[in-house]
Amino acid sequence: MEFASDNMVGAHETILTAITEANGGPAASYGYDRWTKQAEAALSEVFEREVAAFLVLTGTAANALALSAICPPYGTVLCHAEAHIHTDECGAPEMFSGGARLTGLPGPQGKLVPNSVERWLDGLIRGEHEAKPVALSITQTSEFGTVYSVAEVSEFGHLCKQRQLRLHMDGSRFANGVAALGCTPAEITWKAGVDVMSFGGTKNGAMALEAVIFFDLALAQDFRYRRKRGGQLLSKGRFLGAQMQAYLRDDLWLQNARHANRMASLLAAKLTEIKRIRLPLPTQANEVFAILPRSLHLQMLDNGAHYYEWPSGENLETEECLVRFVTSFRTTPEDVERLAELAGKLAKQSRAPSAEGAPTVGL
Amino acid sequence: MEFASDNMVGAHETILTAITEANGGPAASYGYDRWTKQAEAALSEVFEREVAAFLVLTGTAANALALSAICPPYGTVLCHAEAHIHTDECGAPEMFSGGARLTGLPGPQGKLVPNSVERWLDGLIRGEHEAKPVALSITQTSEFGTVYSVAEVSEFGHLCKQRQLRLHMDGSRFANGVAALGCTPAEITWKAGVDVMSFGGTKNGAMALEAVIFFDLALAQDFRYRRKRGGQLLSKGRFLGAQMQAYLRDDLWLQNARHANRMASLLAAKLTEIKRIRLPLPTQANEVFAILPRSLHLQMLDNGAHYYEWPSGENLETEECLVRFVTSFRTTPEDVERLAELAGKLAKQSRAPSAEGAPTVGL
Amino acid sequence: MEFASDNMVGAHETILTAITEANGGPAASYGYDRWTKQAEAALSEVFEREVAAFLVLTGTAANALALSAICPPYGTVLCHAEAHIHTDECGAPEMFSGGARLTGLPGPQGKLVPNSVERWLDGLIRGEHEAKPVALSITQTSEFGTVYSVAEVSEFGHLCKQRQLRLHMDGSRFANGVAALGCTPAEITWKAGVDVMSFGGTKNGAMALEAVIFFDLALAQDFRYRRKRGGQLLSKGRFLGAQMQAYLRDDLWLQNARHANRMASLLAAKLTEIKRIRLPLPTQANEVFAILPRSLHLQMLDNGAHYYEWPSGENLETEECLVRFVTSFRTTPEDVERLAELAGKLAKQSRAPSAEGAPTVGL
Amino acid sequence: MEFASDNMVGAHETILTAITEANGGPAASYGYDRWTKQAEAALSEVFEREVAAFLVLTGTAANALALSAICPPYGTVLCHAEAHIHTDECGAPEMFSGGARLTGLPGPQGKLVPNSVERWLDGLIRGEHEAKPVALSITQTSEFGTVYSVAEVSEFGHLCKQRQLRLHMDGSRFANGVAALGCTPAEITWKAGVDVMSFGGTKNGAMALEAVIFFDLALAQDFRYRRKRGGQLLSKGRFLGAQMQAYLRDDLWLQNARHANRMASLLAAKLTEIKRIRLPLPTQANEVFAILPRSLHLQMLDNGAHYYEWPSGENLETEECLVRFVTSFRTTPEDVERLAELAGKLAKQSRAPSAEGAPTVGL
Repeated sequence: MEFASDNMVGAHETILTAITEANGGPAASYGYDRWTKQAEAALSEVFEREVAAFLVLTGTAANALALSAICPPYGTVLCHAEAHIHTDECGAPEMFSGGARLTGLPGPQGKLVPNSVERWLDGLIRGEHEAKPVALSITQTSEFGTVYSVAEVSEFGHLCKQRQLRLHMDGSRFANGVAALGCTPAEITWKAGVDVMSFGGTKNGAMALEAVIFFDLALAQDFRYRRKRGGQLLSKGRFLGAQMQAYLRDDLWLQNARHANRMASLLAAKLTEIKRIRLPLPTQANEVFAILPRSLHLQMLDNGAHYYEWPSGENLETEECLVRFVTSFRTTPEDVERLAELAGKLAKQSRAPSAEGAPTVGL
Repeated sequence: MEFASDNMVGAHETILTAITEANGGPAASYGYDRWTKQAEAALSEVFEREVAAFLVLTGTAANALALSAICPPYGTVLCHAEAHIHTDECGAPEMFSGGARLTGLPGPQGKLVPNSVERWLDGLIRGEHEAKPVALSITQTSEFGTVYSVAEVSEFGHLCKQRQLRLHMDGSRFANGVAALGCTPAEITWKAGVDVMSFGGTKNGAMALEAVIFFDLALAQDFRYRRKRGGQLLSKGRFLGAQMQAYLRDDLWLQNARHANRMASLLAAKLTEIKRIRLPLPTQANEVFAILPRSLHLQMLDNGAHYYEWPSGENLETEECLVRFVTSFRTTPEDVERLAELAGKLAKQSRAPSAEGAPTVGL
Repeated sequence: MEFASDNMVGAHETILTAITEANGGPAASYGYDRWTKQAEAALSEVFEREVAAFLVLTGTAANALALSAICPPYGTVLCHAEAHIHTDECGAPEMFSGGARLTGLPGPQGKLVPNSVERWLDGLIRGEHEAKPVALSITQTSEFGTVYSVAEVSEFGHLCKQRQLRLHMDGSRFANGVAALGCTPAEITWKAGVDVMSFGGTKNGAMALEAVIFFDLALAQDFRYRRKRGGQLLSKGRFLGAQMQAYLRDDLWLQNARHANRMASLLAAKLTEIKRIRLPLPTQANEVFAILPRSLHLQMLDNGAHYYEWPSGENLETEECLVRFVTSFRTTPEDVERLAELAGKLAKQSRAPSAEGAPTVGL
Repeated sequence: MEFASDNMVGAHETILTAITEANGGPAASYGYDRWTKQAEAALSEVFEREVAAFLVLTGTAANALALSAICPPYGTVLCHAEAHIHTDECGAPEMFSGGARLTGLPGPQGKLVPNSVERWLDGLIRGEHEAKPVALSITQTSEFGTVYSVAEVSEFGHLCKQRQLRLHMDGSRFANGVAALGCTPAEITWKAGVDVMSFGGTKNGAMALEAVIFFDLALAQDFRYRRKRGGQLLSKGRFLGAQMQAYLRDDLWLQNARHANRMASLLAAKLTEIKRIRLPLPTQANEVFAILPRSLHLQMLDNGAHYYEWPSGENLETEECLVRFVTSFRTTPEDVERLAELAGKLAKQSRAPSAEGAPTVGL
């Protein structure tokens, strides 16, 4: 019952096969091989326009490199306070940009809202005594499993144009967002005003694969220097190219994402039926957030369920906790069924002692 | 006839098999999986002492991260002027260290000599107006295919201790050096005074695998923060762990290196017999450097040989050029034979027109 | 009626005289002159122990350099959300530290409270995925004119020891704090656990003078490299040394601060008597914060008063604004009298139209 | 007999008077005062066009900030191997640029030559594996007291345009160069292709005064952020403005420089007459380099002469050393006379013992 993260499962078999097939014979190194060239072209097809695509190895590097191309050291990037770049990358954006600052703003359901961005910008009064706002970053799918609609991204696109900000999209779960929206990749990115994105593969079936994609080609001009200098230019680059080819071929990336999303919907539906569990957030992609009694949570872990408690800004009851379930291309309906059954069974059992007034927290 | 680089061939089949085998079932992410744990332990065995090992994805990152742990931003790292960190990493050491400087010193056959290091240190007279020398980096095997003996490394070890410098070894071709020397990994590293090294796998049969290894464990204290921040913490870390396990198991790493070294010896022996080619450097590991007429060089390329011309500080004759042949675990005796035959055949032919006075340079 | 900032007045005459007197004859450059040597010794006397003191030119540089000595690039410095280092230095701490992060925490009256620091530290659950907390910075006198007592600083000192954090004090208005507390400089710094401080001169009568002072001498070991590299080593260093000598001689620094503090007290007392003005913060040093109707504020500016509106997190009435008055060594009782009289007079006048219901906001 | 450096003398009296006069009354801080505004305008007049001028406090900061505006972190700045930015600023350019690299090239008499720059650029073959050349920096007056002619600077200007490099001039002794050439400031800077310069005041009579001057105004767009972030925005900015006003008024800067240059000429003429001393470099500005027996050098120091031995790449005789004499606005003909007399007297005396075969080196 593995629901801890979509990076805890291995790679999709098609990806591994592609790696193996790419192994024969010599090939140009450092991304000049034919797999990489074809993968870059395939990305342009996916986005229905010429893009400048750069394959890299980790999501943190993809984000940090992308931001370094749009944010000078004296600049600041606005993002959600719970954005991965703000809370989970140990200052990689600061390092790759040469010391730029991230400004974390609040927003409901893990999503930034244009209003609070505008208000923050309007509150700047110190001129050069403060970092210059130069970019905005949104995460699609957000860190709370919610999805920005095309209209919402477009609103940010307009705001950025007006305010002379660059718009970055952290797309480590981009596939899940596209699958959820049923839109084209183009509609939710450059057509909506996105300048540069991190296009994730690892969480959705690849082994180690991310791409930095520039829609504004001018921004990409010297990016190959940044990638090399950032330690992200793989010498045996064919293995990145081969992964990306397989990831895009026959829409594997969307198939994987759709499957994961379906599994999350299924799980959400089943958990909703359990009385002692409530879902504080809509389940739009492949993450289900739930609030449940801590005692129930601990029993579930004891019984083999694997998932994480999540830091909560919400005002929970003392005995409650917030948890996150993530589904992946590997999750089966049976996995979901087993987890839901376990939760249902334990929820019924634990209600009894709780009614007897026995303290259940801290077990 | 692929002799351009040891990173132009794919991965060893054993490595790929290990990756595939590691693919089943869920596993802890970010290097807390069992493959990685076992690989780290195996590295301690290889070096016959407890080491702090950190798996990363590229050699440039391994070097830059390692140096960042021993060199503050106001420091300088002494290295050979032709060291990879100095000429081929686009400033990654500067970036990862926060702006430290590399000081490139000359040295015969691609190797630093303690004397010139001492002289440089003794010439410092400006105090805080110059970067503080804090570390020394040597490359084993060197960028010119030469190998530092245990005595030579030890001499640097002593020098560093006396001068309060940390000693780093760029071991992207460490295996070839160990294979050439016939010593133990311990003898040529920590026993000789090395504090931290980059232990390379990619050039020697892995897909994407390097390790930063600290022999002075205190230096490793916060290194996990640096690795994450540097974008080198792979989420599906099992795939690095599995590569390293396979790389070390049954001495695959040494077998691969020994084979590549043998192929280079063979090639050197054969090229030496060709009159119009001379070898300016001893062939000690898996690289053969040769000086030959540019006309011959161009004909070889035309006839399917693949290898690189190399920047030469040497005073070559106008019509000559320096070239580099690299052998790998994939190189076969037949490959060598074919290359040597081609060279021999063309060398004979081209002598004729040249004797007729026809200009051959610049073809 | 200049109350905008203590940096808008010139330098104290004694300081200028000292500069002029230091001008004769040659002197060693880069801080090896006798004025600087004596100034450094005088700082050790002021703090009743050997300190490592480094004269620099601006407060921003003093803070950023000091923090760079205690915070590695992957670290974070905890500070008040309204701390000068967080809001007014355009990322200098990030730049000088090589990309470290500042974590701004809330706290009443401009002061951090140990509780919220502890809670933040206890909430860290992501290991190397988040910046490592390595230091705490408090501002004495705080950005809201409030003063940390010896007991309060000591509490932070203990907390830092327990949590293995370094304690930095931004003392750009240190003199005002010491004057307010009536304690010794030693008591409120190293005896209370401070490791390093920025000792300000410019705001309190110097022309351009700050010092970074290390109480933990080991931290200062390579600091001279950082100062030079940071562009803060003045070649004609005698002019910094002479300022510091004059600043400390006969307690000029404390006299200036006491005077400024008295003027602020006087102003606070007078403003309190005006019905339409209220003081939301205690006046403990040389800053008076007041809340008043925006209409009154605008009339005061129109009538020649010079001071700043201040960003307010407080929930003010729509028509109100928060303003800051700063007094300095130059402020006279007559200046205070004139400002208070103007405010009193305008407050009475403006009440009438306001009573008539005329909208006064937005004039 | 002070000839060690032009930064060992104090400030010119006119500068100090201007500082004192600027001290009365309140003034806007952070460079928005009228002295600074007028100084900035005066610089535009000096250069006969609109320039973007930023006053800062030290020459190292001026250079590092200027370079940071034209060189991204992955770039490299070409300069003379003996350039101040390369040998005397402890990595400040690296720090302020976020890790860019300086590439030091050789050149006779302390001056870069276009040829060697071109050759270096043509030798680049590694693409993104090497730092990208983006800028060239020349020092006027050079570190060896030589002066680039208008034609020479123009040649670099052309080269930079062709090669898409930005041209920076380190003008810490710019005044001496202009005085030597008798040209206008415009002719030797923007008319010759310079994009940005450091305009020095401190070495030539100011107390602490440098300016970063952009001729390409677009480059200056966000520079005020960089200055603040770099700790170089003085709060009591009037004291920089007042210095610059006085420095430019009535051509004080050129008068000071002309005087210093004349004193150097005088010294050179006198030293040339002494048989055991020879001048390896032309004396074009305010520095005289001399080669003399080490024994003579040591005797001069013993007899009260103060100046520095200089690192020499030249092949000197074993018993010889290279020394540098610097003259300043303070140097008098009598100072020069005394030094030359001492040298002459000692040179005659020391010849005798030397003739007797007594070893004199190493005393």
